[in-house]
Amino acid sequence: MKSMKVTFQPEGTATHAEIGERLIDVASYAGIDVNNLCGGRGVCGKCRVRVLHGRVTATGKSIHFLDRNELESGFVLACQASTTGEDVEIYIPPESRIEEGQILTVDHIEEIVRYEVPAPLERGLDGLPATSFLRPVCQKYYLELARPSLSDNLSDLDRIYRELRKKMPDIYIEAHFACLSGLAALLRESDWKVTATVHLRNARFGQIRMIEKGNTADVNYGIAVDVGTTTIVAQLVDLNTGVPAAVEASYNRQASYGEDVLSRMIFACDFGGLQPLNEAVVSTINSLVDALAAMVGIEANDIHCLMAAGNPTMTHLLLGLYPGHIRVEPYIPTANRFPQYQTAEIGLRVNPAGLLHIMPGVSGYVGGDITAGVLACGMNERSDIILLIDVGTNGEIVVGNKEWLACCSSSAGPAFEGGGIKCGMRATRGAIDKISLQGGAVQYHWIGNGKPRGVCGSGLIDAVAELLLEGIIDQRGKFVDLDHERIRVTDEIPEFILAPEGETENGSPVVITEADIGNLIKSKGAILAAVRVLLENVSLSFDDLAYIYVAGGFGAYLDVRKAILIGLLPEIPRERVRFIGNSSLAGARLAMLTAANFHKAESISSRMTYFELSVHPAFMNEFVAALFLPHTQIELFPSVREALAERRTRNAAHRSR
Amino acid sequence: MKSMKVTFQPEGTATHAEIGERLIDVASYAGIDVNNLCGGRGVCGKCRVRVLHGRVTATGKSIHFLDRNELESGFVLACQASTTGEDVEIYIPPESRIEEGQILTVDHIEEIVRYEVPAPLERGLDGLPATSFLRPVCQKYYLELARPSLSDNLSDLDRIYRELRKKMPDIYIEAHFACLSGLAALLRESDWKVTATVHLRNARFGQIRMIEKGNTADVNYGIAVDVGTTTIVAQLVDLNTGVPAAVEASYNRQASYGEDVLSRMIFACDFGGLQPLNEAVVSTINSLVDALAAMVGIEANDIHCLMAAGNPTMTHLLLGLYPGHIRVEPYIPTANRFPQYQTAEIGLRVNPAGLLHIMPGVSGYVGGDITAGVLACGMNERSDIILLIDVGTNGEIVVGNKEWLACCSSSAGPAFEGGGIKCGMRATRGAIDKISLQGGAVQYHWIGNGKPRGVCGSGLIDAVAELLLEGIIDQRGKFVDLDHERIRVTDEIPEFILAPEGETENGSPVVITEADIGNLIKSKGAILAAVRVLLENVSLSFDDLAYIYVAGGFGAYLDVRKAILIGLLPEIPRERVRFIGNSSLAGARLAMLTAANFHKAESISSRMTYFELSVHPAFMNEFVAALFLPHTQIELFPSVREALAERRTRNAAHRSR
Repeated sequence: MKSMKVTFQPEGTATHAEIGERLIDVASYAGIDVNNLCGGRGVCGKCRVRVLHGRVTATGKSIHFLDRNELESGFVLACQASTTGEDVEIYIPPESRIEEGQILTVDHIEEIVRYEVPAPLERGLDGLPATSFLRPVCQKYYLELARPSLSDNLSDLDRIYRELRKKMPDIYIEAHFACLSGLAALLRESDWKVTATVHLRNARFGQIRMIEKGNTADVNYGIAVDVGTTTIVAQLVDLNTGVPAAVEASYNRQASYGEDVLSRMIFACDFGGLQPLNEAVVSTINSLVDALAAMVGIEANDIHCLMAAGNPTMTHLLLGLYPGHIRVEPYIPTANRFPQYQTAEIGLRVNPAGLLHIMPGVSGYVGGDITAGVLACGMNERSDIILLIDVGTNGEIVVGNKEWLACCSSSAGPAFEGGGIKCGMRATRGAIDKISLQGGAVQYHWIGNGKPRGVCGSGLIDAVAELLLEGIIDQRGKFVDLDHERIRVTDEIPEFILAPEGETENGSPVVITEADIGNLIKSKGAILAAVRVLLENVSLSFDDLAYIYVAGGFGAYLDVRKAILIGLLPEIPRERVRFIGNSSLAGARLAMLTAANFHKAESISSRMTYFELSVHPAFMNEFVAALFLPHTQIELFPSVREALAERRTRNAAHRSR
Repeated sequence: MKSMKVTFQPEGTATHAEIGERLIDVASYAGIDVNNLCGGRGVCGKCRVRVLHGRVTATGKSIHFLDRNELESGFVLACQASTTGEDVEIYIPPESRIEEGQILTVDHIEEIVRYEVPAPLERGLDGLPATSFLRPVCQKYYLELARPSLSDNLSDLDRIYRELRKKMPDIYIEAHFACLSGLAALLRESDWKVTATVHLRNARFGQIRMIEKGNTADVNYGIAVDVGTTTIVAQLVDLNTGVPAAVEASYNRQASYGEDVLSRMIFACDFGGLQPLNEAVVSTINSLVDALAAMVGIEANDIHCLMAAGNPTMTHLLLGLYPGHIRVEPYIPTANRFPQYQTAEIGLRVNPAGLLHIMPGVSGYVGGDITAGVLACGMNERSDIILLIDVGTNGEIVVGNKEWLACCSSSAGPAFEGGGIKCGMRATRGAIDKISLQGGAVQYHWIGNGKPRGVCGSGLIDAVAELLLEGIIDQRGKFVDLDHERIRVTDEIPEFILAPEGETENGSPVVITEADIGNLIKSKGAILAAVRVLLENVSLSFDDLAYIYVAGGFGAYLDVRKAILIGLLPEIPRERVRFIGNSSLAGARLAMLTAANFHKAESISSRMTYFELSVHPAFMNEFVAALFLPHTQIELFPSVREALAERRTRNAAHRSR
C-alpha cells in the first residue's frame, strides 16, 4: 500500500500514513490529541483542522460545521477527512486540541506562573513595595452619600463628585454620560450607598464609567495581556491589592492564518484577512478571560480593564487596524500611542463599560511589548547602560539608560518558541527545557509531572550548546559523526535523539534535527547581528554594558552560559546577564497597576530612537558573520574559544588513545 | 341641531360646531389650518390631532397611521373624526399645521432672527469683536502632512498630532479611537491632505473625532439650541466665523403631553412618559436641524456640535433622564453640570461623530438657560449689581455681580408665550405685539406682512397696561364697563376686541378676555414676588440695581414702561431696564463659539446661590400682594400711582362734563 507523509502544524510534527486513514487517527499516532467528543462520528464539529498543502477526501458531514469561507480555506473535520496518497500538511488549531482543555488545570497554571511571570520585576521601580505605588488605571470607590436636603441640594452627580474628590483630591473627575441614565433611581434604591468605577488616563484625569448599588469595591480586576505572535499570555490581577490572581496562556488563534508577523500581514492585506485575524485574537483573549474568571471564581463583568502589550502588527490586528503599511518601507504604523478603547467596541467580553489600554509602541517593528519591557526592568530610570533583548518570533533590542534609549528589531523566526522545530513546543507541560550531554550521557529536565513531549526554546539552546561542546556538531551546526548512537537519519535529515521513544508521552522520540539546528542558528544570528549593529550605532561595545537583560517566553531555565556559547548573547561576565522572563506581561501589569507608569511608558515610547535594520548596510554582513557557532569572529567569545579548544584537545586525546 | 363647543389647543381658540362635523373642518373655520395633503380622504395621515377632553367618532382609517399608544392617548386623524355632541378640546400638534411649513420661508426666518436673537449681546464679553475670542468647542483643521520616510517615520496618528500641535500648541490633543479605523488608507488615498475635526472640552483638552479626506475645513457648523418648555429655538452658526447663518423656531412637540414643566414631569414619572417626551424633544430639534441645513444649503453632516440651554426638566428630558426628583422636595436633578453626549446616542441627526454640550445649571429649577443668560449679559464680570429676569413658562431671577450671584425660580405659567390666552400666540407672523388705546381709539402693530392672527406676550402686556391706563379695567383686572363698545361677553366671559373680525386673517376677532387678564396678573405676580423675595434675601432694594435685564421670548417690542405699569418689572428709572431678548440662545452661542466661555458658564453655575421659593415663608405673601395692577403696595410704583391718579382725574373730569 502506498505510504505518504503527513505533517502537522504548527509543531511541524511529521508522520507517515497510508491511503484512506482518517486525519484524526494519523494525528493521534503522531502524538497530537485532537478533540473527539462524539467519538469520530462527525456530529460534534470539534475536530476542525485545516489542510495547508496536499489533498484529502472528506465526507459531506463537514459542511454542517464549516462555513463557505472555512471550506474554501481548506478546513475539514479531522474525523471525516482521509488521506488520498498525496503528502499533506495539516494545521491543527488550538481549539481543536485536547491540550487546550488541559491548560485550565491548576497545576499547569502554576507552571506558567513560574515560567512566564517574573515576580522580582516589581522592585525594578524605585524598589518600593507594590502597595505604595498602587494607583490602578481602574479603581472602585464605595461611597456613602449624604441624603439630599433643602440645605444640601447638590445634584445626584455633584453629590458623587463631592465624595469622590475626598478620596482622590488630585484627580479631575468626570462621569461618562452613560452613567447618568437611571442614576436617580439607582441612588435612591441603594439608599445613597453606591460604588463608582473610575478609570484614570493619567495621574490627573479620571472618568466614572460605572455606578453600582451598594459596596462592590472589593471586587475589581484587570487583565494584563501579552499579545504575542505565537502565544498570548493573560494575567488576572486584583486591582485592589496589585496581586496577580491567575495567569493563563494560549496559542494565538491567528496562527491558523500564518505563523509569523509577515504571513499574517500578507493575509490581512492581500487576502482580506483583517477581520478574521482580528476575530481570532479577540476570541483567543476572550477564552483566556473566561478561563481566568472561572479559575478565580469571578464574573467576566468584574473585569474592568485590560492592558495589552504586543508588537505593532499584533496590536493593529487586535484593534482591527490595517497593518499593511508596517510591511513596506518606510514601515509606518497607524499609531504608536493609542487612545483608550471601549472593550465592548473591540468585542472583548469583560465588563461592557470597561476599557482596553494599549501599551505605547515606538515604530512599526518595536511595539508596546518592548516599552513594557523597558518599564518592567526599569532601565529608563537607571544611570548605567543596560541592554534589553526580548527574544520572540521577532527579536527586539533596546539599549540605553535614563538619559537616552535606542532600539531596533530583527526577525528571529519562531524557533525560540518552538516553531519550525520538529519536536518544538512552548515552555509548558512536557517541554524539555534543560539538557546536558556530559561524557556522552544524555540528561534532560522537562516541565511538569508527565512525560516529555517536545523541546522548548531553552532546551533547544541547551541541546545545541551541548552538542557543540561535545563535538557532536561543528561550528556550522552540522553533525560530525552520523554513526553516533543517538543519531539517526529520517527523510534524509540527520537528527539527534534527546529522549528515546520509551521515555516520551506519545512513544515517539523527542529529537533535534540538523534543520532545527540550522533554524536556531539563523534565529540567534539575527539577534546577535542586531545587537552588534545597534551598539555600533550608539558607539558602544559589549564592555560598556552594565547588564544584559534577556526577556522572552522560552522558559525560566535559560542557561546564560549556553546562550553565550551558541552566540545568542554577546559574551560579557555571566553575573551581568539576567533572564527576566516575560517582561512584556510584567510591564503591562505595572502600567495597569499605576497610571503614572502608563504615563512613563508613553514617555519611554516617545523618547526611544529607532534604528531600521532592514535598510542598514551593516546588518546583512553582521548576520552572515553570526551564522556560526558562536560567531565567525571567535575573538568576540573568548570563553567559548577556550571551551572549544579544550574540547578539541580532549577529543584529540580521546582519538589518540 | 345640537351645537357644542370645540376648543383647539395650544391656542385655546374655541368655536361652536354641530354634531357630525369633521374636526378638520371645524379647525378650518376656527382659523387653524390643519394639513390636508390628501384632501381629507384619510390616506396621508398628516392631520393627526389629539382629543384632550370629550368624545368624537372616528372612522377606521385612523388606525393605519396611529400606533396603539397614540390611539390610547386620544390621537385621531382630523379628517376622519367628527363631533358627537359633546364639548371637546382638541390639541393640534405643530407637525399637523400648515403653519409649520410656513416657518421655513425666508421672510419669516428674518422675523425670528429679529425677534429672538439679540445681536448686541456679544459685546457683553469684554467688548471684544467676535473673531478675537473665537475658539469654538468644535474646530476643523486642514492639514497637509509630510509624506513619511525612513528619516521621518512617525506613525500616521503622530503625524497628525504633530501638525495639529502647530495650530493649537496650547491644547493637549487625543484622537477618539474610532478615528484610527481606516486611517492608514484614508491618509494615503488623500495624498496626506486631510481635515481633522477637533472638539474642545475646555481651554486645555481636545479630542479628534473625525478625520476626512482633503480640505473640508471651510464647512463647520454648530447649533445653539434654546430648549424651552413651549418653544424651541435653534440657531445655526458658522463656527469658522462665529456668524449666525440661520435661526428657526418651533413649538416643543412635548406640548401634546402637557403644557408646562409640571405636567410633563407628571407624565414622565407617573405615566411612563419619559421615552415619548424624550423622543418628542429630539424630533423637534431634528426638524429644526433639517430646516436650518436646508436653508443654508448644507448637509446635516456638516453640523458637528450642539450647545443646548434649557431648564433642568427640559434638559433631563432631552437626555432621557428621569426628572421625577426635581418635582418633589428637596428638588434634586440628576446633574447640573453634564458630561458631553454623543449626538448619535441621543438620536440627534447631525454628524454622527458630533457632540452635544449642555449648558450647566444651578438647581432643579434654575437651568442652563439661566447660566447662559448670565454669560450672555456679562453680569458675572461686572462690578455693579444687575438683576436678570428671564420670563418664560417659568420665571427665573438672578441678581449679583462678578463677586456673587444669587437666583431663584418662580412658576409663571405660559401666558407670556401665549399659552392659556384665548387668542395667545408666540411672537411670530400675525402676532399683535404693540397696542395703544389713546383716547379710546385702538391702534396695534403686528408682526409680518399678513393680517393679525393673535396676540403675543408683549402685546398682552401692552393691552393690559393700556386697558388699565384708560380705566377700562380696574386694578384687579376686571372690566369696569361691560357696555364699552369694544367689549362683548362670550360664554359669560367678558372680552375686549383688539382687532375686529374684518381686520384679522381668519375673520374672527382677536380678543383679550377677563380670564386672560387674570392669567397675566398671576404670571406677572409670580415674577415680581420672586424678585422681591430674592432681593430681600440678599438685603438689596430696587435702588441698588444698576440695571435690570429682561430676557424672554415674548417679542422684541416689550415696552418697559408698560411692563412696570402692570407690575411685571419693579419700578426703577426706565433707562436702567433693558430688554435683551433670548439670552438663553445667545449664551449658548457664546459658549459654543468660545470653549473658555463654556468653562465660565460652569463656574457661574457652581458659584450661584439658589433660593428655593416654594418653601420660603415670605413668597406666598408677596405673591398675593402682587395679584393687583401694579401691586397692592402702590408706593413701590410711584410713577404708576401718578399715572393712575392722573387717569382718575381725567375720567372724573370726563364724567363731570
